[in-house]
Amino acid sequence: MSSKDGFSWTQAQGLKSGVPCIGAISPPTNLSNNDTDFDVIVVGAGYCGLTAARDASIAGLKVLLIEARDRIGGRSWSSNIEGYPYEMGGTWVYWGQPNVWREISRYSMQDELELSYDFSRGVNKYYLVTPEGTQKFTHEEEDQLMQSGLQKLVNIDGCGGREAIMFPNSANLSPAAAKYDRMSVADRIAEIQHDLTPNERVCLEAFVLLCSGGTLETTSFYEFLHWWALSGYTYQGCIEYLVKYKFRGGQSSFAIRFFEEALATGNLKYSFNSPVASVKSVSAGVEVTNREGQKFRALRMISAIPLNILNDVVFDPPLTSGKKVAADTGHVNQCIKVHAEISDRDLRSMTSISYPHNKLSYGFGDGTTPAGNTHIVAFGGQHNHFHPEEDIQQTLSAFRGFAPMDIQRLVFHNWSKDEFAKGAWFFSRPGLIVDHLKDMRANQGNIVFACSDWALGWRSFIDGAIEEGTRAAMAVRSSLRERARL
Amino acid sequence: MSSKDGFSWTQAQGLKSGVPCIGAISPPTNLSNNDTDFDVIVVGAGYCGLTAARDASIAGLKVLLIEARDRIGGRSWSSNIEGYPYEMGGTWVYWGQPNVWREISRYSMQDELELSYDFSRGVNKYYLVTPEGTQKFTHEEEDQLMQSGLQKLVNIDGCGGREAIMFPNSANLSPAAAKYDRMSVADRIAEIQHDLTPNERVCLEAFVLLCSGGTLETTSFYEFLHWWALSGYTYQGCIEYLVKYKFRGGQSSFAIRFFEEALATGNLKYSFNSPVASVKSVSAGVEVTNREGQKFRALRMISAIPLNILNDVVFDPPLTSGKKVAADTGHVNQCIKVHAEISDRDLRSMTSISYPHNKLSYGFGDGTTPAGNTHIVAFGGQHNHFHPEEDIQQTLSAFRGFAPMDIQRLVFHNWSKDEFAKGAWFFSRPGLIVDHLKDMRANQGNIVFACSDWALGWRSFIDGAIEEGTRAAMAVRSSLRERARL
Repeated sequence: MSSKDGFSWTQAQGLKSGVPCIGAISPPTNLSNNDTDFDVIVVGAGYCGLTAARDASIAGLKVLLIEARDRIGGRSWSSNIEGYPYEMGGTWVYWGQPNVWREISRYSMQDELELSYDFSRGVNKYYLVTPEGTQKFTHEEEDQLMQSGLQKLVNIDGCGGREAIMFPNSANLSPAAAKYDRMSVADRIAEIQHDLTPNERVCLEAFVLLCSGGTLETTSFYEFLHWWALSGYTYQGCIEYLVKYKFRGGQSSFAIRFFEEALATGNLKYSFNSPVASVKSVSAGVEVTNREGQKFRALRMISAIPLNILNDVVFDPPLTSGKKVAADTGHVNQCIKVHAEISDRDLRSMTSISYPHNKLSYGFGDGTTPAGNTHIVAFGGQHNHFHPEEDIQQTLSAFRGFAPMDIQRLVFHNWSKDEFAKGAWFFSRPGLIVDHLKDMRANQGNIVFACSDWALGWRSFIDGAIEEGTRAAMAVRSSLRERARL
Repeated sequence: MSSKDGFSWTQAQGLKSGVPCIGAISPPTNLSNNDTDFDVIVVGAGYCGLTAARDASIAGLKVLLIEARDRIGGRSWSSNIEGYPYEMGGTWVYWGQPNVWREISRYSMQDELELSYDFSRGVNKYYLVTPEGTQKFTHEEEDQLMQSGLQKLVNIDGCGGREAIMFPNSANLSPAAAKYDRMSVADRIAEIQHDLTPNERVCLEAFVLLCSGGTLETTSFYEFLHWWALSGYTYQGCIEYLVKYKFRGGQSSFAIRFFEEALATGNLKYSFNSPVASVKSVSAGVEVTNREGQKFRALRMISAIPLNILNDVVFDPPLTSGKKVAADTGHVNQCIKVHAEISDRDLRSMTSISYPHNKLSYGFGDGTTPAGNTHIVAFGGQHNHFHPEEDIQQTLSAFRGFAPMDIQRLVFHNWSKDEFAKGAWFFSRPGLIVDHLKDMRANQGNIVFACSDWALGWRSFIDGAIEEGTRAAMAVRSSLRERARL
């Protein structure tokens, strides 16, 4: 199966849009003509919507899952090309991420993970590329450099954030957390700039931008601290939580389990290729209309629509004012993620930062393809933004900005031009969390708004999506039980 | 409400058995006479059984929960005395523990945690008490001493266990993991003894015994490495995962949520004070008989009976041979956990090891009672075993083996004499995991055996109990769906 999403490029075939995806759902619907009334309509089939739809189906509710795309997974999906999975969005998972690991354990997928890094052969070096040239370090030196720079960034309390951000999962920000959410990372760097070596500064800026996909000015310092705290307050923890373990079969091999389990209950109807145009609150619940004019009714709706496209759906009555301000503000992550299959086997053990001049600032060996080639994953963002499909030569040059390499294939998804995402994972500008986290999380009438973008724990992550889908299904189930008792 | 479990002692009242508990269930059953046939019978109302019963109830199955005790929680329960919770068993939770945190998040209890430690005032010291006397260290020095000793213990691969135990959640032990499961911690210490300072050795031995509740000879080295890996491969991680955050309202305030949610489905029947005597496989499922001779039938049974008492139930047909060997072997944890309320406010910030001579080897300030007194929690184990209720003066002396203190109250549960536990949390002797983990996990006929004792992740923990309850409910649901299709 294939999705319309994503791009691939090879010298022989040139640029092609649409890539293979085991998360593409065909046929796109199992609705029959008289399926118009449900207990709950879930809008969005990313991990949040999938979890909500699955949990509600298991609990015996009649569920309709509506999705704009032709596939499940939202901002996390993989394309298997010639037997190898390329992760187009959310990739890594860890047993310390509660919601995601609970599901991995539940589906007995503990043995389906593998490591991104392999430092067992090849160059086994960290290339730090600046406009001045390339420095090469061991990975131990890389870790020391990253840890020392980041420690200076986060050491707001003498213990690396452990006191200031003691309860990172709380919706009630401590005064310290609120204060740091008013600051950007640029503000914080200005405070510590004289303590940073030039290399530390390059490393920490590139790392922060890898997290936020924004600019230093648009990156909330608190939001970065939130990631840091959840990762155990160390750089080593960040590696383990953020970029170490991934699915051997790709993210879509995980997402499909949620969908299949929901289907097996017999309570799930679904409609893909079905973007929602409007949502109207009616006396008995909600009425949802897609762009083709099909109408569906339910007692409750779970909106798993991301923040950056919430304004593209017409809500009647309109979104409450706090929610509207949050949607107008949006999040800042315009991450560019591109995969290259290269013939240079020795670069399998390369990690690299090429910053601030290069179009891709972060890259590393992420796998070995069945052909024995190296797979490099690379990231750019808003600070030096581009659209990889618009100028392939520029994209190839951006990869060569890490090290010379012979590129045989590119695979990517342009999240910035994706009308159903308008950006990558959530990352907030200063003030959004302290001012509007609770607004984003609030229900409105019979609509539960659930999305990784406003999760309390691993906000922005697959984990946060599952957290939110879990919360939404539980809220709907509980409210319908109360209603049944009236 | 009160449970028959547990003991309290004060100078004025002397020793009393039975303590207040919000997890005591009254009346003990909601069964009516004609309730004899169910979809699934869950035996055991600890976190594993509660999770299984809840998930099965939500999924629409008719569930009977049978429990030997008068309360929920199994080996994790709290007693609220004069407005203060004493944790009789499993206590601490962390957002990096997937199953437990998923539930905390699901029940919106993220803000109901507090810290055990408070180093803001008082002695603020680590007392290391050996037969030679007491040395006092700062907590920073304590951390360094613990980390350096433990690092030598676990550094089997040059990177603190990260390579040797790369996938700690796997049921398929790597050759390295299998090798270390054949070794005891005593064997490992023999290998590194010449690298250890005397203080490092005391600290690491006391820490390992705090984890295992056994002796160094009966403590599997792999099982300790498994905890270490799950805690992020650092001592700091161990602190954060194992002893930092607990429920302000006590563990029973958490467990009761599972029970209440299950009840609210309308699908749950329960019977407390109802120890199961025998389990017979019959053509259509299982027949469960309690000690009073009441019989119940179901299509499936979930046994959440701990390993150390599995032999006390008569199974017909008998347990398979691998399961029987595991049950005959048992686990080795005979932890003694005792709480003291003391008037010495300055000891709130004390941590202490008193080893190997003292009856309690590990103690620290764990809270401040409403009266402003300090709450000290202390642990002993098999290496120097005693029964705290048998000689209160000896128990008081054991506390004074950390530091002089004025003890006003003792609270504890004797897990070793508890006929429904015969020990504390699971800890394995060498060989049990590599030889019998899969046997313990295996189904037998229509019985799913689920218990934290053989969880894959946080085995021995509340987290592992929820992991196992989740697995069991899913297995039963899935098998009954398949059956319905026949």
